[in-house]
Amino acid sequence: MTKIILNGCCGKMGTVISNLVEKDENLQIVAGIDKFPKGERSYPIFSDLNECTIEYDVLLDFSRPDSLRPILAFSEKNSKPVVLCSTGYTTEDLALIEEKSKVLPLFRSANMSVGVNLVNMLLRKISPVLYENFDIEVIEKHHNQKVDAPSGTAVMLAETIKNSIEEDTHFVYGREGFAKRDHKEIGIHAIRGGSIVGDHDVIFAGDGEVIEITHKAISREVFAVGALKASAYMGKVSKPGHYDMEDVLNLSF
Amino acid sequence: MTKIILNGCCGKMGTVISNLVEKDENLQIVAGIDKFPKGERSYPIFSDLNECTIEYDVLLDFSRPDSLRPILAFSEKNSKPVVLCSTGYTTEDLALIEEKSKVLPLFRSANMSVGVNLVNMLLRKISPVLYENFDIEVIEKHHNQKVDAPSGTAVMLAETIKNSIEEDTHFVYGREGFAKRDHKEIGIHAIRGGSIVGDHDVIFAGDGEVIEITHKAISREVFAVGALKASAYMGKVSKPGHYDMEDVLNLSF
Amino acid sequence: MTKIILNGCCGKMGTVISNLVEKDENLQIVAGIDKFPKGERSYPIFSDLNECTIEYDVLLDFSRPDSLRPILAFSEKNSKPVVLCSTGYTTEDLALIEEKSKVLPLFRSANMSVGVNLVNMLLRKISPVLYENFDIEVIEKHHNQKVDAPSGTAVMLAETIKNSIEEDTHFVYGREGFAKRDHKEIGIHAIRGGSIVGDHDVIFAGDGEVIEITHKAISREVFAVGALKASAYMGKVSKPGHYDMEDVLNLSF
Amino acid sequence: MTKIILNGCCGKMGTVISNLVEKDENLQIVAGIDKFPKGERSYPIFSDLNECTIEYDVLLDFSRPDSLRPILAFSEKNSKPVVLCSTGYTTEDLALIEEKSKVLPLFRSANMSVGVNLVNMLLRKISPVLYENFDIEVIEKHHNQKVDAPSGTAVMLAETIKNSIEEDTHFVYGREGFAKRDHKEIGIHAIRGGSIVGDHDVIFAGDGEVIEITHKAISREVFAVGALKASAYMGKVSKPGHYDMEDVLNLSF
Repeated sequence: MTKIILNGCCGKMGTVISNLVEKDENLQIVAGIDKFPKGERSYPIFSDLNECTIEYDVLLDFSRPDSLRPILAFSEKNSKPVVLCSTGYTTEDLALIEEKSKVLPLFRSANMSVGVNLVNMLLRKISPVLYENFDIEVIEKHHNQKVDAPSGTAVMLAETIKNSIEEDTHFVYGREGFAKRDHKEIGIHAIRGGSIVGDHDVIFAGDGEVIEITHKAISREVFAVGALKASAYMGKVSKPGHYDMEDVLNLSF
Repeated sequence: MTKIILNGCCGKMGTVISNLVEKDENLQIVAGIDKFPKGERSYPIFSDLNECTIEYDVLLDFSRPDSLRPILAFSEKNSKPVVLCSTGYTTEDLALIEEKSKVLPLFRSANMSVGVNLVNMLLRKISPVLYENFDIEVIEKHHNQKVDAPSGTAVMLAETIKNSIEEDTHFVYGREGFAKRDHKEIGIHAIRGGSIVGDHDVIFAGDGEVIEITHKAISREVFAVGALKASAYMGKVSKPGHYDMEDVLNLSF
Repeated sequence: MTKIILNGCCGKMGTVISNLVEKDENLQIVAGIDKFPKGERSYPIFSDLNECTIEYDVLLDFSRPDSLRPILAFSEKNSKPVVLCSTGYTTEDLALIEEKSKVLPLFRSANMSVGVNLVNMLLRKISPVLYENFDIEVIEKHHNQKVDAPSGTAVMLAETIKNSIEEDTHFVYGREGFAKRDHKEIGIHAIRGGSIVGDHDVIFAGDGEVIEITHKAISREVFAVGALKASAYMGKVSKPGHYDMEDVLNLSF
Repeated sequence: MTKIILNGCCGKMGTVISNLVEKDENLQIVAGIDKFPKGERSYPIFSDLNECTIEYDVLLDFSRPDSLRPILAFSEKNSKPVVLCSTGYTTEDLALIEEKSKVLPLFRSANMSVGVNLVNMLLRKISPVLYENFDIEVIEKHHNQKVDAPSGTAVMLAETIKNSIEEDTHFVYGREGFAKRDHKEIGIHAIRGGSIVGDHDVIFAGDGEVIEITHKAISREVFAVGALKASAYMGKVSKPGHYDMEDVLNLSF
């Protein structure tokens, strides 16, 4: 049984996490932290992390980037692993995370979804094999309120593909005009509309056949599922280092 | 039984047409015309159209644009309808076709596929209804040898959508950077790779739901199927005019 | 401005409806009814429908089937239209709804989603046209907790297709063994897995081409959007009758 | 440069192979064998394998199963590898192939497509990882003339999945009635229609996300491409053994 302190336990994701843990017999939230406690929980809630003296295995953070320093200090004091799931860290924050990973077992990942990370690992393996005979294109679909195009995840996947291929490929963001496709192109297409949660589709198109690897997010719950997998994994880790979802998934390939 | 003269009977499409007609009990090829006759056929082949004096109902042309004038003269002399399926006509040719459609029943269509034309008709009907609450995007996929992007068919579909909507929409050919989607955008995305024959996908993305209308070409046979539907239809037409696939499909909506 | 009384205003769907109406300048909730009021609303809440004497245009019901009789009595007393969105009515209830539609403008629809109803209308139009040359299959995907297979919506779509075709087709629910497809088959395939909200895909597969019409539900919000469209429509109706989503969408085809 | 003897050089696949080799600078057909020679080739054609004394590296067979014994005798006499791409072998034939693979480098694979074999390898890797949290379903689509359902390739993929999972799963071929999905089910769905060449789609559906791995065959050319990859690989093999496409692809995972 892994004992979790959940930082940010009363936010939207904190609530999702709390509900999921109740159905998981290998995980237990022993304490929650939230500046603005609200709602009922099956565990004690503290408004300040430092008031919490309950024994635990791993600290899971779904709060805000400005809680980074207190979290790291608390974890270092207790010599316990930490799982960072807040987003929006500054470059200074990221440098601090790197530094502290030398003394603490520390988890942070660009995308928390098990599925996206698995797809990313597959792409790293198969892209160099397929590239010789297949053209590669990435298509992503998101809701019409999304500001960045292409999505961060699409960029992550496309860079994984590019970095796995020896030849010097380049990204193309849409096509208009008269020109045959250059094999060194990796097309990235950002479709936007309605309330689409987030689809990513990588197409390997060859002579007479097409392979597609697709990920579709249905709800934000995927990020919670990934965070709990990370917490269960990190709860058993004692060696300092920067861990990510690929460590957690621990596929042999 | 509709009696067809097939002009260009020994080319690739002529062969496909000949095979299809053999399985169709309502159609019969009574004569074929080809400058360079080859292969065996179940009908007589003439190297010159004017040598052919066999009685017929409709002339189906799958040859080259430079045979336009002899074909129109022959059809006018016999007062018979003509189905033009050659591609690559000049503006002069197209003007001549328009002119001759005043005296002859004449068929020509931008896309011969039954499916694409049906999709086009559906889009004309539903786009103005859905536009208020749905964002519209067009995605097309073709092989890596295709020179033009987006495809002519994608442009046809997107213009049908645009023309059916009162508000002044505009086309966007791919996205990169930071900007929310404007509802007046119609995204058009050209994916290229391998030997993909031709897919067209129109996405209507709304709050909480997505409708997609998709056409996938599997082989060039679709164009032959459309040409035979057009021939069967035109064989019964005596009134001069410019007919296209939508006349042939003759849907009530 | 259409004035709505929302029956069942504090349930999950009632909350979604309330939030949506706030963003819609043509609709206003003037009163909410809920046996167990909770949460804050911008309108007065009554625990009993009959306590509410506020002037209104249409009653929208998202409560439970056992509130049917009081709702109909209230609507009849006020001579106002009613939109019924509760599910689980008995055959007795449905007979009563039919009966009361002779004296009241009454809305009820098997599926509230704008998109599904539009797809249903399209299928009614194109299936008889395409059937001669295209094989028709229906594929639906839902979460692993769904008890019925195929889904009610898949059955609705398949029956629309079947009823629109002259020839006597029959449904096939999966295939195993050795037998060519009979053209009179309409395949219906129920995929189940994870938390998929609900996809419906109708495939028209012909010689050399495939047309697909797809609906994907992203969230339950679609039902709220449909209910508000129905409310806006019914708020202007005075003639008694049983109305459904196809009346609301009011397409000319 | 790998020197190939092509057995069955004048059949449909033999013609495709011949055209592909002309564009490949690492391969050369030095002789063709066909009982009924026709058409022009850039290499000498023999009607009997044993008349051919031209030096070669590998024998590629795309003929008929009854040529198995002469082919194996010829290959054994010359101590050269052989690539068997004929289909329809009897159990007796398959036993002979197994036996001869002890003295000859011998290639035979259930599916020649590079893509399908790659997908099969991916499934073997990821299914045991994903199974705990994802439901797995296989959907295949083929033309309406296909006699067997599900397709041989779908069965191969589904068995790869089943064999990679510790828990005892079982196949379900379609669904109708009232029952929640059992996690141990692997759904296999056979869609049939028109002239669809062959699509295979494996769906991993989890909480809040779906991963799909899809293969679409566009034309029979894929089998030729696979056969040439196999020939290039086998031309350099001297160690006896039964080789298949996974050896050829030689992925490290």
